[in-house]
Amino acid sequence: MQIAILLYDKFTALDAVGPFQTLSGLPGAEIVFVAEKAGPVLDDTRALSLVATKSLAEVSGPDIVVVPGSPEPDLANDTVLNWLRGIDATTTWTTSVCTGSLILAAAGLLKGRRATSHWLALEQIKQFGVEPTGQRVVFDGKYVTAAGVSAGIDMGLTLTGRIAGTEHAQTVQLLIEYDPQPPYDAGSPEKAPAALVERLRARV
Amino acid sequence: MQIAILLYDKFTALDAVGPFQTLSGLPGAEIVFVAEKAGPVLDDTRALSLVATKSLAEVSGPDIVVVPGSPEPDLANDTVLNWLRGIDATTTWTTSVCTGSLILAAAGLLKGRRATSHWLALEQIKQFGVEPTGQRVVFDGKYVTAAGVSAGIDMGLTLTGRIAGTEHAQTVQLLIEYDPQPPYDAGSPEKAPAALVERLRARV
Repeated sequence: MQIAILLYDKFTALDAVGPFQTLSGLPGAEIVFVAEKAGPVLDDTRALSLVATKSLAEVSGPDIVVVPGSPEPDLANDTVLNWLRGIDATTTWTTSVCTGSLILAAAGLLKGRRATSHWLALEQIKQFGVEPTGQRVVFDGKYVTAAGVSAGIDMGLTLTGRIAGTEHAQTVQLLIEYDPQPPYDAGSPEKAPAALVERLRARV
Repeated sequence: MQIAILLYDKFTALDAVGPFQTLSGLPGAEIVFVAEKAGPVLDDTRALSLVATKSLAEVSGPDIVVVPGSPEPDLANDTVLNWLRGIDATTTWTTSVCTGSLILAAAGLLKGRRATSHWLALEQIKQFGVEPTGQRVVFDGKYVTAAGVSAGIDMGLTLTGRIAGTEHAQTVQLLIEYDPQPPYDAGSPEKAPAALVERLRARV
């Protein structure tokens, strides 16, 4: 089972590494990090590079694709969009984290579907004929989208359960000790202080 | 404020990226990924490399150090242990995720202190004169240790709050949409099915 995780300039690192750390536990999983060119790809903070081991041209039939998000996703990169359209024809699961769903949507893959994205991007995704939901992980057929950044961990575990069963997914959860205890309860616009939500909305 | 995140062969990627994604939001933070030699460092799955931008010799006075864990932490690498002892003399915070605390302990930095680790390593850490706790994030003076893998996110947010205040930490939490909703409740040995816990203990 080949799992391709897309990297591109200014991707958000945890968007890629959350699903990676969970999905890499799937039996028989071969993970490939893929980008336009193989080699290091800088994240949105410019402090971290993850290494793409394959170019897009070298990965033509993954079973699963994961598209991470970015504060500045490039929705007009035809090389990437065409690659996504091509591989989507044969994937078992086409997935995204955060604004990665905007990239899938820009490729036309989410048209008429329910999907999620970073909470600040839920309005924007409507432009692509997508019905946004406020859920953290959304399944619509083989399309699985996760909300902002850290939601990729929940997505990866949920997908692991669908593919390999509950017990296997629980084993992965226990191995990564995923028993979250955030020190604050401010992780969604419904829960965070309203002033803070408004300040971030104003920035966009 | 310089934050050094240590990389070494077979580190666990999420151990490093969880704290990175939260601490990189600190005002004035300069993050450096550091390893014995600068360049790509392979994780424990062998599928992912993160790039160390500096060698140990180039980083001599970070304000914060983060030591990720590994299923096979090298507790006898004198180059790394001596580097940790050296920089610890002037850090404001010395931190670890998962079995990274075994490395700090092997360097002698946690002697007589309370600390945590991956749940499967809590017995082992006693060998270094450390008092293990089952808590997810443990502060003892300037030493901050997190439990397994995903606990680095909670550690990073908690430390962000201590350094930059509650509102700033809540902003980071909202930006990474950290409103965890694990599909199972199996993330700690107390919560997971007993048979599964026993199977993993038997593997170690």
